[in-house]
Amino acid sequence: MTRTDPIRPTDDEARALARGLLAAARFGALGVIDPATGAPAVSRIAVGTTPQGAPMSLVSTLSGHTRALRANPACSLLVGEPGPKGDPLTHPRLSLHATARFVGREAPEHAGLRAHYLESHPKAALYIDFADFCFVVFDLRGASLNGGFGKAYELTPADLLPA
Amino acid sequence: MTRTDPIRPTDDEARALARGLLAAARFGALGVIDPATGAPAVSRIAVGTTPQGAPMSLVSTLSGHTRALRANPACSLLVGEPGPKGDPLTHPRLSLHATARFVGREAPEHAGLRAHYLESHPKAALYIDFADFCFVVFDLRGASLNGGFGKAYELTPADLLPA
Repeated sequence: MTRTDPIRPTDDEARALARGLLAAARFGALGVIDPATGAPAVSRIAVGTTPQGAPMSLVSTLSGHTRALRANPACSLLVGEPGPKGDPLTHPRLSLHATARFVGREAPEHAGLRAHYLESHPKAALYIDFADFCFVVFDLRGASLNGGFGKAYELTPADLLPA
Repeated sequence: MTRTDPIRPTDDEARALARGLLAAARFGALGVIDPATGAPAVSRIAVGTTPQGAPMSLVSTLSGHTRALRANPACSLLVGEPGPKGDPLTHPRLSLHATARFVGREAPEHAGLRAHYLESHPKAALYIDFADFCFVVFDLRGASLNGGFGKAYELTPADLLPA
């Protein structure tokens, strides 16, 4: 038994599903290149969005993924967590393909990111201002949406972000 | 405020936590290198274990991650899913660093993998014998355990697998 190309044409239903997964994400799985080995490394990070709806995170500068992103900003972020019931492999998920961009406290956009992030992650108030935490925005290159078995789409940044 | 190296010495409690996370995993986030771009790509896959306790999966040969692993078997697999309650970033998780090895139907170990996988994933009986699905075993190079805020460990394959 063989099947043909599983990628479907992108439609408004796929765009709405993908935007909903991104807007609802509070954490995700970040893939980076380990600078020591050149191999991929996946770790869990907090996920929020910028006021414009782009994915972002608050990361520790002591973490391996932050060191990796400073060496090579190419990364991928999986969002869309299965609930406690049902088959996790039929639950929709979104693989974002992105370039990481660090936003320091001196940047004009920092205050807006901080306020917006705290709305979705109020507990982060405990450490958001620590010197060894910083914001990273994920500038999108594209995304792969898996809406469940046999429902795969390749999305552009414009499919994910409001104009 | 700064903190020192967050990696703790590995102890039996860390080993038991890591082994438990791996044994309980039914899915995870796989990081591969996209052969088209050289960038990381993260996607959700089913996760089981071999009869010896090593991580494995049943993957579609039509998927992007399978094509990527055939081009470059270096990969990473994040397991340890947060429950529906509590802070997901304090939930323990394990980042496995591995080399993917495909196991075809002609391989002597195939029957044992198939039987063991179906014990943990009974619904996979619907497609486990499709020609476009195959087994992949993740030969471990090491792992990073995050047992919650400030509880990080670097583990060896021997820490994770029974002797």
